[in-house]
Amino acid sequence: MNRIINPDKSTWPKLLERPVLDLQSLMKDVEGILDNVKKNGDQALREYCLKFDKVHLNELKVSKVELKMAKYEVSKELIKAIDVARKNIESFHCAQNPSIISRETTPGVKCWLKGIPIQKVGLYIPGGTAPLISTVLMLGIPATIAGCQEIVLCTPPNKDGKIDSSIIYAADLLGIKNIYKIGGAQAIAAMAYGTETVPKVYKIFGPGNQYVTAAKMKVSLENVAIDMPAGPSELAVIADETCIPEFIASDLLSQAEHGVDSQVILVSKSESLLDKVDIALDEQLKNLPRKDIAVQALAKSKMILLKDDDTIMELINEYAPEHLIIMSENFTELSEKVINAGSVFLGKYSAESAGDYASGTNHTLPTNGMAKAYSGIGTNSFMKTVSFQQLSSYGLFNIGNTVEELAMAEDLIAHKNAISIRLNKYKKQQSDEF
Amino acid sequence: MNRIINPDKSTWPKLLERPVLDLQSLMKDVEGILDNVKKNGDQALREYCLKFDKVHLNELKVSKVELKMAKYEVSKELIKAIDVARKNIESFHCAQNPSIISRETTPGVKCWLKGIPIQKVGLYIPGGTAPLISTVLMLGIPATIAGCQEIVLCTPPNKDGKIDSSIIYAADLLGIKNIYKIGGAQAIAAMAYGTETVPKVYKIFGPGNQYVTAAKMKVSLENVAIDMPAGPSELAVIADETCIPEFIASDLLSQAEHGVDSQVILVSKSESLLDKVDIALDEQLKNLPRKDIAVQALAKSKMILLKDDDTIMELINEYAPEHLIIMSENFTELSEKVINAGSVFLGKYSAESAGDYASGTNHTLPTNGMAKAYSGIGTNSFMKTVSFQQLSSYGLFNIGNTVEELAMAEDLIAHKNAISIRLNKYKKQQSDEF
Repeated sequence: MNRIINPDKSTWPKLLERPVLDLQSLMKDVEGILDNVKKNGDQALREYCLKFDKVHLNELKVSKVELKMAKYEVSKELIKAIDVARKNIESFHCAQNPSIISRETTPGVKCWLKGIPIQKVGLYIPGGTAPLISTVLMLGIPATIAGCQEIVLCTPPNKDGKIDSSIIYAADLLGIKNIYKIGGAQAIAAMAYGTETVPKVYKIFGPGNQYVTAAKMKVSLENVAIDMPAGPSELAVIADETCIPEFIASDLLSQAEHGVDSQVILVSKSESLLDKVDIALDEQLKNLPRKDIAVQALAKSKMILLKDDDTIMELINEYAPEHLIIMSENFTELSEKVINAGSVFLGKYSAESAGDYASGTNHTLPTNGMAKAYSGIGTNSFMKTVSFQQLSSYGLFNIGNTVEELAMAEDLIAHKNAISIRLNKYKKQQSDEF
Repeated sequence: MNRIINPDKSTWPKLLERPVLDLQSLMKDVEGILDNVKKNGDQALREYCLKFDKVHLNELKVSKVELKMAKYEVSKELIKAIDVARKNIESFHCAQNPSIISRETTPGVKCWLKGIPIQKVGLYIPGGTAPLISTVLMLGIPATIAGCQEIVLCTPPNKDGKIDSSIIYAADLLGIKNIYKIGGAQAIAAMAYGTETVPKVYKIFGPGNQYVTAAKMKVSLENVAIDMPAGPSELAVIADETCIPEFIASDLLSQAEHGVDSQVILVSKSESLLDKVDIALDEQLKNLPRKDIAVQALAKSKMILLKDDDTIMELINEYAPEHLIIMSENFTELSEKVINAGSVFLGKYSAESAGDYASGTNHTLPTNGMAKAYSGIGTNSFMKTVSFQQLSSYGLFNIGNTVEELAMAEDLIAHKNAISIRLNKYKKQQSDEF
């Protein structure tokens, strides 16, 4: 890893720069796919399936038989692991269920906010060499806890036209039966516009490659909500001389193995710690199956030596990492200074991979510095709030003049009239009672 | 208003269709503006100011003198109204301040979510014939309650290079001192990219014309968050024969006066009520200053007669109006069936304009059917949540095997190693104790 010693603040922006994703160049291809699916529905989906996934599918939807058979094809150990992870994720996401917020702002003026599930949501689970079971759990569990009525899941089939049984098993376990063998931008199109087979949804969730991300961004301009734009995964670690270098190296590698564009940063006040982590990295890299990927990611990664905790936290908040491990002895103190991060892991036993899979927190988090304004996925990502208000005649009497005055200042006289006509009625009622 | 009697469900999509906003045709102009401001900063802003606002400005920022003088130029009545509205909006938005959500999902595994203010936010207040004081309050109050550190406000100047003193007064009252005389797409560019004078922000809020909306959508693809894409304002009213037709007419007109593209819908089971509302509309239209606008909006608006409450609520949820007034006698019962709406007003005294200005709820709400997936603005729109987790060695022991199993299933062996290396240490510690 590159080592940077006490970099001057003026160099931070350059130092913390992420690779710029040029989605614009893909946009034309992606728009072609979106338009085709919009116009030709299932037929377009089958064409893309043949073209990209190299398989002809008559049935896009996972069949009842496939649903039934899945559990027999998953190992007992994996079933048990899915069960434990599910229990923890459910526990933490149930705690997030919003209660009604209510306030009588003025006598006779009651206002409240109510969380209501988004009725139709779509989950995208990327394909690739291995089944992303954890992503099914991380999206499916909050969707079911929120109470979404219709949950659609799309994931690309393999060359045999199959979806890994562990994905089907995990989805089925959560009650998600609408599983479609569709990948890429065409899956996003199917869920955004609907086809003969795939229902249109109101919000689309999930990670994916650049085509998927570009498609999500494009449909987000057309009245379909998306969770957030996703970039390459990131980890920053803050550590001091009390930390175990092997633990740090294992965390850095767990990030680096994601992809060659993974972002890894280690920040410390201790140069000897950096030396020790370098040694541990070399040692652990030896037997790593995804060594080639990790080596490339590490080559672009940085160890940054800084002089004090305040500077460290300033740099971290400027970077706004997706994942932040604070392993230093004073992790509690430092954690209180976190402003911009997706998810924070405290102390030496809080490995990032614990949160990726099973501690209970969600692993769908803002990347690319977006933690400055975006939150990770939670139960409320699958809900929206609706405000309600109920004014009694007395309530309207109390705030009526205020509304009239402001409406006049804004030249909206019909707004004023809607109050005046009611106030007049109220005043007449009051005088009639005498 | 057009009247539609018991429309067949198959006709609903057409019936509830909104005008399609073609932002694509503006995009080229908007991109030109964005690029120019990105490259040339303040100089570009001054050029656009001269071009669009017809005034040359040396100073883009509202001066300390202008801030000081504002309160002497606002009438006592308006100051009082701003005060009452502020108090109510503050009361309701303070109630929304999130508390920390915490759960020990497994012994030794603590997870929590913490709301943290977005550090830098930008508020856009549109110009036009009258000052939108209420929008300053509706965006500025939750921003200050959330605790945003840097709040930037942009609004176009008039031909004398001035901003209405009531806008400056309201902003200053909330502690917002960074007020810039910039309008349109160039204001969005200034806040998204930053210039010599205007600080870059992480999230941009506020309504605006199609250029502003297009600019917000464009920058939202470039790592700047936005509140939501905004379309023309909308109102749906549900009423029965117990309702006072004059109240309904006044509400419909308060919506219709916004603009010729305002969407107004009245739904009822009672045809005689529709007749009476038509008469009341004619009567109230007579003296309305913005009569021409309202007449055009009403010409495209609809009264829909439906046969029962269930059908009414189904249609309303399909339409997903920005504002929904339920005036029918059984409004409480009907309100429980609301799924898709921005803000709901219950009973005969809950005029929409009460919520626009002073009841306490926010008036920045999802339009164009986006209430199906989006919420209105609230205090949490100015915050993001960060998840934290802290595992003890015992906690890691409890979920370690689960993480290892799932990581293996996903072919991410470095993820597994980060756990194994810690579990081995833990087991060694345990055995060392014997």
